[in-house]
Amino acid sequence: MNTTTPTAAATRTRVLTGDRPTGRLHLGHYFGTLQNRVRLQQQGAELMLVIADYQVLTDRDVADRLGEHIEGLVLDYLALGVDPERSTIFTHSAVPALNQLLLPFLSLVSVAELGRNPTVKDEITHSRQSAVSGLMFTYPAHQAADILFCKAGLVPVGQDQLPHLEITRTIARRFNDRYGQVFPVPEALLSQAPLLLGTDGAKMSKSRGNSIALSASADETARLIRGARTDAERRISYDPESRPGVSSLLLLAGLCLERDPHELAEQIGDAGSAALKRLVTTAVNDCFAPARARRAELAQDLGHVRRILHQGNARANAIADETLAQVRAAMGGLVAAA
Amino acid sequence: MNTTTPTAAATRTRVLTGDRPTGRLHLGHYFGTLQNRVRLQQQGAELMLVIADYQVLTDRDVADRLGEHIEGLVLDYLALGVDPERSTIFTHSAVPALNQLLLPFLSLVSVAELGRNPTVKDEITHSRQSAVSGLMFTYPAHQAADILFCKAGLVPVGQDQLPHLEITRTIARRFNDRYGQVFPVPEALLSQAPLLLGTDGAKMSKSRGNSIALSASADETARLIRGARTDAERRISYDPESRPGVSSLLLLAGLCLERDPHELAEQIGDAGSAALKRLVTTAVNDCFAPARARRAELAQDLGHVRRILHQGNARANAIADETLAQVRAAMGGLVAAA
Repeated sequence: MNTTTPTAAATRTRVLTGDRPTGRLHLGHYFGTLQNRVRLQQQGAELMLVIADYQVLTDRDVADRLGEHIEGLVLDYLALGVDPERSTIFTHSAVPALNQLLLPFLSLVSVAELGRNPTVKDEITHSRQSAVSGLMFTYPAHQAADILFCKAGLVPVGQDQLPHLEITRTIARRFNDRYGQVFPVPEALLSQAPLLLGTDGAKMSKSRGNSIALSASADETARLIRGARTDAERRISYDPESRPGVSSLLLLAGLCLERDPHELAEQIGDAGSAALKRLVTTAVNDCFAPARARRAELAQDLGHVRRILHQGNARANAIADETLAQVRAAMGGLVAAA
Repeated sequence: MNTTTPTAAATRTRVLTGDRPTGRLHLGHYFGTLQNRVRLQQQGAELMLVIADYQVLTDRDVADRLGEHIEGLVLDYLALGVDPERSTIFTHSAVPALNQLLLPFLSLVSVAELGRNPTVKDEITHSRQSAVSGLMFTYPAHQAADILFCKAGLVPVGQDQLPHLEITRTIARRFNDRYGQVFPVPEALLSQAPLLLGTDGAKMSKSRGNSIALSASADETARLIRGARTDAERRISYDPESRPGVSSLLLLAGLCLERDPHELAEQIGDAGSAALKRLVTTAVNDCFAPARARRAELAQDLGHVRRILHQGNARANAIADETLAQVRAAMGGLVAAA
């Protein structure tokens, strides 16, 4: 375990990223973002991993099994190599100062700008306006608080999230212009996630129940891959357009083995889907065996997991309080005489 | 000074009301709401007087002289009879728990409901949508937090604020339905403010500079009333439609003297505007002399004023923390493991 001192840590580039605790992380998450995060940490960045528990309110009426999901996320992070000595794992609701940034931030964006949020636009177009809650509508301001409270310099985003980050950048610039320099304007780290399909042929997703969890057992993984949708053609080829199921499996094996999916297709030749699935199963299980073993070991001591989260929350609060003090000083009169 | 114990105070009906610290309170405020508030306190209610300092952000770019305005409000309240032993004066920004209620509350209202806010609708219709900030748009949720954090049973409102209060009532009901009974549904105390015109003939308003401040000196009051717009007709009559200036002065004198403005008009007869203005000046100065004297005395010891605000903030925080604990317990899983 690396023993970078907290003092040194405070001067490293901060990368804000995180997840909603709505279920188990899966292989799509890993190859889409988790793998990159751990690489950024290895390159010296401090990861700020927000577990966005409050955001569960935005589109779930009931937050079932939230505590369990949060612990699951922390276990996944730790098992994959997030080092709590170098990086900070925290839950949104444990950092009350975050919400103190909402009022000034909301005052710096217009309704028109919030409405340009593509997720909200989609909802308003495709569904009813009454389906968009005030919380969802103001999501870009909440995200700005998550990013700016810790003065993150880098935010890994997919193409679809770029407009959200642009609002954060706008808020940072406007705050600095109006009240004086407090926030760095964060840069987007545009990541291109490989398109992994779930076992039903649709995009792998927590909510569709078509995903292979990082924490799945080797047997569970084998069973899920056996049930994945492919096609009847015996000759295996990599052709995402016309053979999405087969190609996604080849891509998955390629990612695990760090090999070209075309090459893997050649290697399997006309041994058919069953052979492909055996190869993918072995690749996934070998690739994740060390992380899964670590995860199982860590899961033996949930007290330790909770202590790590507790420490992360304490650190996030210390950072948030420092930023909030700067915000209040910059805003001058807006601090009460209390 | 009444010495109701804090324990007894906690069980009295709470009335949430307050002001934005944007300038000196004036006679329109007094006869519109302040007088009623003090009456409610005398009838046994606990006033929760929020000084909405953060709301200055909603439509002022710069919060000039905010500390001075806040102290001025506290002085006005105390001078008019608000008893800090029975009631609570606090600044919004000193009660951080208030903003913790925003996330659940925003999740309970739709964008369509927020957009029905008449103030926002007005802005969007008459001005540009880009002029409406996210803070202004979400104002009903902030107001709901102000009202519900202290479980206010009564909220004095004008006709135009009824839709705002309706959103607060909706949020309280939806929260209770979804998470369990926490909030009483507050009742509107509809007040009919007399229409006092300013010295320029438009509605008396802090921002128009046409008002007579509660804290004005007797001389300043005389000068302002001398400059008030009336008309050239010597015979004084009460006819708000065709003689707005003269009638507003009669109404003001009537309010101060607790007399019918028609009667006052009769009494002045054809002595003209100058006589009317002398009568109004004497009425206002006599009516407010005791409060102005108390205010001047209190202003000698701003340390005492700040201590009262400090105590009010402490009490508001204690109330807010208790409510927030109930909210968190009701929402179950949404509290982090920190």
